[in-house]
Amino acid sequence: MAVGQNIFPLMPPISGVQLGTTNAGIKQTVRDDLLIFQFSESATCAAVFTQNAFCAAPVHIAKAHLSQSPRWLLINSGNANAGTGEQGMRDARQTCQDLAQITGGQMQQVLPFSTGVIGQPLPVEKITLALPQALANLAENHWEPAASAIMTTDTFPKGVSKVITLDGETVTINGISKGAGMIQPNMATLLSFIATDAKISQPLLQQCLARAAELSFNRITVDGDTSTNDACVLIASGCTLAPEIVTDSEHYKIFAEAILDVSKMLAELIVRDGEGATKLMRIVVSEAANDAEAVQVAKTIAHSPLVKTAFFASDPNWGRILAAVGRAGVNALELEKIRIYLDDVCIVRDGGRAADYTEEAGQAVMNQAEIMIGVKLGRGEAIQTVLTCDFSYDYVKINAEYRT
Amino acid sequence: MAVGQNIFPLMPPISGVQLGTTNAGIKQTVRDDLLIFQFSESATCAAVFTQNAFCAAPVHIAKAHLSQSPRWLLINSGNANAGTGEQGMRDARQTCQDLAQITGGQMQQVLPFSTGVIGQPLPVEKITLALPQALANLAENHWEPAASAIMTTDTFPKGVSKVITLDGETVTINGISKGAGMIQPNMATLLSFIATDAKISQPLLQQCLARAAELSFNRITVDGDTSTNDACVLIASGCTLAPEIVTDSEHYKIFAEAILDVSKMLAELIVRDGEGATKLMRIVVSEAANDAEAVQVAKTIAHSPLVKTAFFASDPNWGRILAAVGRAGVNALELEKIRIYLDDVCIVRDGGRAADYTEEAGQAVMNQAEIMIGVKLGRGEAIQTVLTCDFSYDYVKINAEYRT
Repeated sequence: MAVGQNIFPLMPPISGVQLGTTNAGIKQTVRDDLLIFQFSESATCAAVFTQNAFCAAPVHIAKAHLSQSPRWLLINSGNANAGTGEQGMRDARQTCQDLAQITGGQMQQVLPFSTGVIGQPLPVEKITLALPQALANLAENHWEPAASAIMTTDTFPKGVSKVITLDGETVTINGISKGAGMIQPNMATLLSFIATDAKISQPLLQQCLARAAELSFNRITVDGDTSTNDACVLIASGCTLAPEIVTDSEHYKIFAEAILDVSKMLAELIVRDGEGATKLMRIVVSEAANDAEAVQVAKTIAHSPLVKTAFFASDPNWGRILAAVGRAGVNALELEKIRIYLDDVCIVRDGGRAADYTEEAGQAVMNQAEIMIGVKLGRGEAIQTVLTCDFSYDYVKINAEYRT
Repeated sequence: MAVGQNIFPLMPPISGVQLGTTNAGIKQTVRDDLLIFQFSESATCAAVFTQNAFCAAPVHIAKAHLSQSPRWLLINSGNANAGTGEQGMRDARQTCQDLAQITGGQMQQVLPFSTGVIGQPLPVEKITLALPQALANLAENHWEPAASAIMTTDTFPKGVSKVITLDGETVTINGISKGAGMIQPNMATLLSFIATDAKISQPLLQQCLARAAELSFNRITVDGDTSTNDACVLIASGCTLAPEIVTDSEHYKIFAEAILDVSKMLAELIVRDGEGATKLMRIVVSEAANDAEAVQVAKTIAHSPLVKTAFFASDPNWGRILAAVGRAGVNALELEKIRIYLDDVCIVRDGGRAADYTEEAGQAVMNQAEIMIGVKLGRGEAIQTVLTCDFSYDYVKINAEYRT
């Protein structure tokens, strides 16, 4: 189950960024579960991480290694190495050490990432044994197998590619990500890896990524649960012929917008593949007093199990949307000023059901797979969008059966 | 589906409090859907209401009428009269007016309450036509039909009774309530009516109720959605032979504890009958720095769809509990100090899975219908309990099909 046609796009190679995958047997499936990124010495690397107070071991280590000019990302699916205490830290360090030894690099140049079940010891030996095979497999055109290797409950691999032109030279941006549950990223997303051949300093790259993550991954939610392992990494190999991108330049604006675009598209793919999802809802809260209250209202709607099950049933049960807005904790909200829309059908106006609303019109919108919920608060100019999906039998099934 | 044996208790009459029900045809079922409380002139009445910014029309009117020495409660199920604008206000006032006309009272002495679907016009005429039958039916021993008449998606009527003795004279307390979805009461609960024959002033009764609601109804959640119609009413008829209960007295302490007990039992019944519930979880957060953070951690666990679906599956997936604690927004939480228990089985200690934990021990607890989740934060002395239930296929089914 997933919303829309989700065909993996053609992703051109990024000069200076190679990807290698293999099946280390962590997940006990036929799918690859280990991915290595190797990038050029000229590369800069930025990252944002989960704000969950209980970061997984690999998150702690990746944060510490980020300042050491990383050359490799080592990613496994099937095991989150979270809630694993000191042993988890030792295990994550060991895998970095093993990769450094084979490649002749420093272990501080490896950023580790894990995703999967929480609380199981990381099978270090399986990973160590699989490293040579993944390294032998390194190539610049392995984006699709890379996107597949990081999947857990995802039903399709997620990739986005974009090309911009700076002074007549192209800069390519590729990104991959995975969902599909425990998704309410907070300053980061579950796992997302974006690479470009742009030349750009690390501080500027970090600034660019922080803004993009805030406006994309931090604006989606599947179930309101923020993962212990969220991370989003942006690598710039510097191998393009285009000039270096510097602060406050027109080039930076173009590049930052392209990174934001790629991030938004990746974030949307995660929601489309949300666990059990049958519908994609774009919640657009406008006329808010400020961005924070717009996000607050949108997320309250997005997290409401009653709203999500109504959408699953294609039931235009706008009372549940109204009740969610009312409990969002916004001060001095005036019901009379609020208008609520399903696409362009106005359902609430003047403190109640819109006079011209008909169930038929509401039903027609609800029957679609993609729906905009528009909420106009009548308090100001701020507008923010949050994406979410519905709540189906399959969400319960997937999460009742996962792990067992 | 409901957790435990939920047999309606024997509820003795409360002198000075009569209840009458009838089927007004609001719900189009064979069940009664209209309830009138009539109480003695000597009665005092306290109430707390939902904090949802979009209160339903009857909530606005009941709030306004509370200071006018109420003599009647007029309650309907099947229609919430919420999101109905000015028409909803006129409709609620009309029903109060109609009841006052028949009884010879003032319309300001009637508190109206509605529960059911949001956004449909209240069928005033059906209610008006049914009033004489409900009034003809008034009796002091009609607690069970009253508890049934206020049900919506509830699967059983909820009642609690308690007797205390003051100076050798008995004071009886009866309470009824209804759930079963859109339950995260905030300073009130969906609908709960408690009556006693105690003699007590209105301000003291209000103080007693406010505290009891905070520590009972405000400590439960089914789905995190705060209703537009929540209300909890406490009526003291003053018909007991026991002396008046006054501020700061030993009698007040005894009475307040009894009201709290009754409230807690009613609140627990709501969770036991939570939509689709198969399990009751008592989340006890202790060693917190203060009550607020204990409640915050407990509610974050209670609202996590991942935790709730794991409990539905009887899966001791403690990683999801840990992740919820980590995202609860508590500052400077130290993973190493935290211990998590399922009943008396320690699952997390020293930053990871407890060394002596076994899946068998965890599984044995998870197979029970009632489970305590204990979280010790290692930060202070505060302790708070929140009750919730699991998330099942039936929750999705009930909320996908309700209204349609």
